[in-house]
Amino acid sequence: MMPLQLQPESHIPLYIQIRDQLRALVHSGELRPGDRIPASRELALQLGVHRTTVANAYAELESEGLIRGHVGRGTYIQGVAEAPKPVTASGNGAGRVRWETLFADERGEETLNRLMPNVSADAISFVAARPPEDLFPLEEFRNCCNTVLKSDGRRILQLGSSDGYGPLRTTLQQLLRSEGLPVREGQILVTGGCQQALDLLCKAFLRPGDSVVLENPTYPGAIAIFAGARVRCLDVPVRTESNGSASTGIDLDALEYVLVQNRVKLIVLTPDFQNPTGTTLSVAGRRRLLDLAARHQVPLVEDHIYARLRLGQAGVPSLKALDRDGLVIHIDSVSKMAFPGLRVGWCVAPERVIERLRLVKQATDLHTDQLAQAALTEFIQRGHLERHLLKMRKVYGLRLAALEEALEKHMPEGVRWTRPVGGMCVWVTLPAGFDATELLVHLRERNVLFAPGRYFYFRNPVPNTLRLAFAALDERRIARGVATMAEMLRTEMRKRQKGIRRQPRPAVALV
Amino acid sequence: MMPLQLQPESHIPLYIQIRDQLRALVHSGELRPGDRIPASRELALQLGVHRTTVANAYAELESEGLIRGHVGRGTYIQGVAEAPKPVTASGNGAGRVRWETLFADERGEETLNRLMPNVSADAISFVAARPPEDLFPLEEFRNCCNTVLKSDGRRILQLGSSDGYGPLRTTLQQLLRSEGLPVREGQILVTGGCQQALDLLCKAFLRPGDSVVLENPTYPGAIAIFAGARVRCLDVPVRTESNGSASTGIDLDALEYVLVQNRVKLIVLTPDFQNPTGTTLSVAGRRRLLDLAARHQVPLVEDHIYARLRLGQAGVPSLKALDRDGLVIHIDSVSKMAFPGLRVGWCVAPERVIERLRLVKQATDLHTDQLAQAALTEFIQRGHLERHLLKMRKVYGLRLAALEEALEKHMPEGVRWTRPVGGMCVWVTLPAGFDATELLVHLRERNVLFAPGRYFYFRNPVPNTLRLAFAALDERRIARGVATMAEMLRTEMRKRQKGIRRQPRPAVALV
Repeated sequence: MMPLQLQPESHIPLYIQIRDQLRALVHSGELRPGDRIPASRELALQLGVHRTTVANAYAELESEGLIRGHVGRGTYIQGVAEAPKPVTASGNGAGRVRWETLFADERGEETLNRLMPNVSADAISFVAARPPEDLFPLEEFRNCCNTVLKSDGRRILQLGSSDGYGPLRTTLQQLLRSEGLPVREGQILVTGGCQQALDLLCKAFLRPGDSVVLENPTYPGAIAIFAGARVRCLDVPVRTESNGSASTGIDLDALEYVLVQNRVKLIVLTPDFQNPTGTTLSVAGRRRLLDLAARHQVPLVEDHIYARLRLGQAGVPSLKALDRDGLVIHIDSVSKMAFPGLRVGWCVAPERVIERLRLVKQATDLHTDQLAQAALTEFIQRGHLERHLLKMRKVYGLRLAALEEALEKHMPEGVRWTRPVGGMCVWVTLPAGFDATELLVHLRERNVLFAPGRYFYFRNPVPNTLRLAFAALDERRIARGVATMAEMLRTEMRKRQKGIRRQPRPAVALV
Repeated sequence: MMPLQLQPESHIPLYIQIRDQLRALVHSGELRPGDRIPASRELALQLGVHRTTVANAYAELESEGLIRGHVGRGTYIQGVAEAPKPVTASGNGAGRVRWETLFADERGEETLNRLMPNVSADAISFVAARPPEDLFPLEEFRNCCNTVLKSDGRRILQLGSSDGYGPLRTTLQQLLRSEGLPVREGQILVTGGCQQALDLLCKAFLRPGDSVVLENPTYPGAIAIFAGARVRCLDVPVRTESNGSASTGIDLDALEYVLVQNRVKLIVLTPDFQNPTGTTLSVAGRRRLLDLAARHQVPLVEDHIYARLRLGQAGVPSLKALDRDGLVIHIDSVSKMAFPGLRVGWCVAPERVIERLRLVKQATDLHTDQLAQAALTEFIQRGHLERHLLKMRKVYGLRLAALEEALEKHMPEGVRWTRPVGGMCVWVTLPAGFDATELLVHLRERNVLFAPGRYFYFRNPVPNTLRLAFAALDERRIARGVATMAEMLRTEMRKRQKGIRRQPRPAVALV
């Protein structure tokens, strides 16, 4: 019997847990080359999981060369995965470095992409929330690059300022003013995107052990930053359905409770088209949130990255626009509006905060790439960004409509989903008892992919949830993908109704 | 009497200490609007510092609007510097945020640029170690941008990989192989430059309280990263003159002692044209360093950023090229070779380390800007980088010769300097008892600037040192700048010889 301990509550899928634990047993020497391990069916029974789950783990270990199956004889430990090799041929005998003992932390997170190896290029992937590159206004962008290199090339290629390229800050000021947010230049810092903004905020505000409030589920990049900095992440649930007076979005009653109980340093949230749920906080909800933050004197970090992808006309004012106490730190980026490959974003906050972030930014990467900053400045100045946004809103509107239509048409009873009016994602809840990761393992074989919900939870994952990112898929593929997913789900539901025996899954399986 | 406590041992200049402490007294309410503060001469006497030092502090406080001098009446506290203001007009009365209480740390570091406000554009500045923008090959670069946006625009502007743009990694592999460093693709990670590489290494390897060895003096950006992460920085001196068998560069006897006494996680150093001293470690020194690192199993971080700026033909092999134990983590960047405004660098290390750094990079800023990566790929592929380097080595050779000639010609006896054969900096040691920061205050008025040595020390600063960065100045300006500096120094030396009374400076002045 192998001493495997599965944690069904973890955001790490069960097959990855099995794979990693088996690998660790080999590395520690508890399993040695030549040792026989149980057949997948046998181990699945022991652990109380699907046989596919074990088969998946074995397949990955086999591709790593760690185990090998012999037909009719069983599966055996093959060897130890490659140890770090020196660059040159011979060592001086002082022995190999054990890097694992030198690293600061465990970093177990597998990215979504790594979870899905060998996916064919024609797969229908609802995985990534990003714009479709076939609609990039390439010519316009190239012209902008040319212009700025001609007019300001020497400055662009020389060392720049940690707050950002001057003309970009001025242009952002104009953009924000035109949207009803008058800010002074000293209230803007250019960043390398929202991921970096969160990293800078983490460094500026949080010591190990300090507390931050995050929505649960949330953007995994935020979890990676705060967990990596050994910060205590307090979870507040997200309401995916409005309920009487309570808005969708962050659960304000739960937040109030957390604020009363804990000394919180920052509240980080995405009020518009939250990733992954697609929910938006109402204006009344925003006001209550601001009041809560002011009462507890906790700064609010507003991730505004999806806000401009609103389909309707009537905009909900940002937290920053409603902010009367200077408590909101507003972060934004062009990666959802236009070009994710350009790492340019910005942060709007009181001068005192920007001053501090500038010092942190300087110690992090000196400044953001200036070619990208300058080209983007020109792109905004010429009105290209606005025009591109108008166009993409129409495109996304059609795609979202196609997704909702397909969900209505194909999904069996008991499946629910959120109804965003913009953004890039819809959040789907399968009937209780289903595990979206297991569904994905089957769907992968049919070339349809999505992001399982557990990737977005840092506590109490809800395994029957999943995220569909629709922005990069055309309507035809959206319809086909949803139909395939629904078909697979119905098959699974029928199997269950027929009473196919499933092992109960113990909270901790010590076999 | 004002309760000011000066720390002459700090790398922060005295006038900045005075300014900051006065500002703090106003903010804390100990000094109030209308209070009179001592005349600069009076405070200088009390503190045992030059009158110019106090005058400098007062000038900055006056420009901030914090104090105001009235002719014949003295100097008075004027008001409190601007508190953070909310963006919109009226607050809800919950009160202003006290950001200082929310930030994670003190971040007192002033950058060199901020130390020198209101410098006229025609000043002769030896401050920044960076290439001259008037020699950038702009046309070539613009053509590269155009080409890559035409051939691969959609991929460039789409979300990229955390390890870097594929074609750049391949190109770097070729470049390194041509230089005698065969590395596998999995041993390269693209970074946003060496500053970011250090930040990623800090996150990957160091917990608060862990120990890192740094050269003292060193690049201030490294100090900012490790101190900001609450890492224990152990200082090893740099030999600026070779002495018998001991090479210039990091003091290996001192290093050995530190390694024996402490559990060190990383050794960070610049073996070629070290910043700020310009020193290079000999091949024998490199071998001994590698042996020490292997014996103590401590990874070496080799900052290779200046190495290609060697003037002679015969290159010293990098630590990475000599590394037989896979212990060297090699970081590099294009910012000294070509364009600091492009934030692109790379890290070469064992696969296991690169894998870890990739995860850390992903949580830090997802990936490096792809437009800069792609344009740089083309720039290298077309041979522009190599040609530009050849040209710049000639330019820098002439500038370095001019600098050495001027130093020989003008500097009074007792002044010493390093003799690098490349890089961007020469390190000057004034006669004992002189403070380079005070010299700078005088020289500023003559429009000549340099970087005082104390900025590069994180322990036991040597106040009579300074750094001259020569790369961005032409020979004429170099000669004029050194002549002015020498003239000023001679004046100061004469004053001393005449026995002008200087107050002794107490270790802690509590007045």
